[in-house]
Amino acid sequence: MNLSSKLLEEAVQAFAGLPGIGRKSALRLALHLVNRETEYTEQLAQALLRMRQGIRSCEMCHNLADERLCNVCADPRRDRSTVCVVENIRDVMAIEDTQQFRGLYHVLGGVISPIEGIGPDQLNIDDLAQRVAGGEIRELIMAVSPTIEGDTTIFYLTKKLREYPVQITAIARGVSFGGELEYADELTLGRSIVARIPYQLGEDKPT
Amino acid sequence: MNLSSKLLEEAVQAFAGLPGIGRKSALRLALHLVNRETEYTEQLAQALLRMRQGIRSCEMCHNLADERLCNVCADPRRDRSTVCVVENIRDVMAIEDTQQFRGLYHVLGGVISPIEGIGPDQLNIDDLAQRVAGGEIRELIMAVSPTIEGDTTIFYLTKKLREYPVQITAIARGVSFGGELEYADELTLGRSIVARIPYQLGEDKPT
Repeated sequence: MNLSSKLLEEAVQAFAGLPGIGRKSALRLALHLVNRETEYTEQLAQALLRMRQGIRSCEMCHNLADERLCNVCADPRRDRSTVCVVENIRDVMAIEDTQQFRGLYHVLGGVISPIEGIGPDQLNIDDLAQRVAGGEIRELIMAVSPTIEGDTTIFYLTKKLREYPVQITAIARGVSFGGELEYADELTLGRSIVARIPYQLGEDKPT
Repeated sequence: MNLSSKLLEEAVQAFAGLPGIGRKSALRLALHLVNRETEYTEQLAQALLRMRQGIRSCEMCHNLADERLCNVCADPRRDRSTVCVVENIRDVMAIEDTQQFRGLYHVLGGVISPIEGIGPDQLNIDDLAQRVAGGEIRELIMAVSPTIEGDTTIFYLTKKLREYPVQITAIARGVSFGGELEYADELTLGRSIVARIPYQLGEDKPT
């Protein structure tokens, strides 16, 4: 589509550079801005700029933060003895949404992946070791992807931290709640039979 | 989803205010900005602001324009005796994309719709009459939606302009090219039989 306005063309190209937005959607968004008052675009642009220029990485856990520490690390009501280790900030959001975890986080920034050239040095592993060395942490919950890279990362962390008196656990793997058994993949179903647990009344009740 | 960062929350809300973007997509877009360098967001914001603050309505045809006249009206190679009357700027883009029309446009800004409270006064009809009164235009091609409102608008325009020596035509209606006949709607198929045209060799060849 050949746009008659150069200004519109530039706005469309800017929108189309965002993930998941094609040229047609980008044109729709740009025309939406044209049809609204100028203040609307100014507010949008300002919100994006303020966010990008103001947002920081939490100095403790590398979650997104507005201040030196993120809301989770700065919250005195959180349990500081339990730290959940995740790959990225989206994982923090997903776990926070469950409202099942009251400890702190540590965002690794990825997992060890020799194929993609990601070694331990590129991840936030050294400062996790420093946090553990601080002595306050009693349990590290590994909540990384159930992949070979994720398992490698857990293995590496466990080895690196074995000198410290910290318990390392991993989130439970098995069939999904509410899913139908016949649709679970073979590996998951097989492992969930091997790793079966004794049935207890009321065990799954959220605490 | 409860975001830990207020700045991120505001950016997500700004994105989610755009048409077709839900909260999840908005979060994805905002995190994309966070992951890219700050200049990326600045360029996006600047492109949107420049577009919104700089874009104008063409003084002749009401198409989008960067200058006083849009690219089409300012182009000396266009045929100034033929004007295509459309509802909105997206229609101009669609027709320009066909590369079948070398005349000028006139954007009405909608169609007459008593139900939605849109009368002739809210549309760019008076200045179309002025353009016609100028005497240069020999043909007005009505390219409005094939609806009752569209037909009403064509009827109104034809009556309003009958004192001028201008020919009024409407774009052809019938079954689509490349479509299968059995899927054409009844009304279109029925009318295209009633309004059948003599077959001529090479008639559909683009000129």
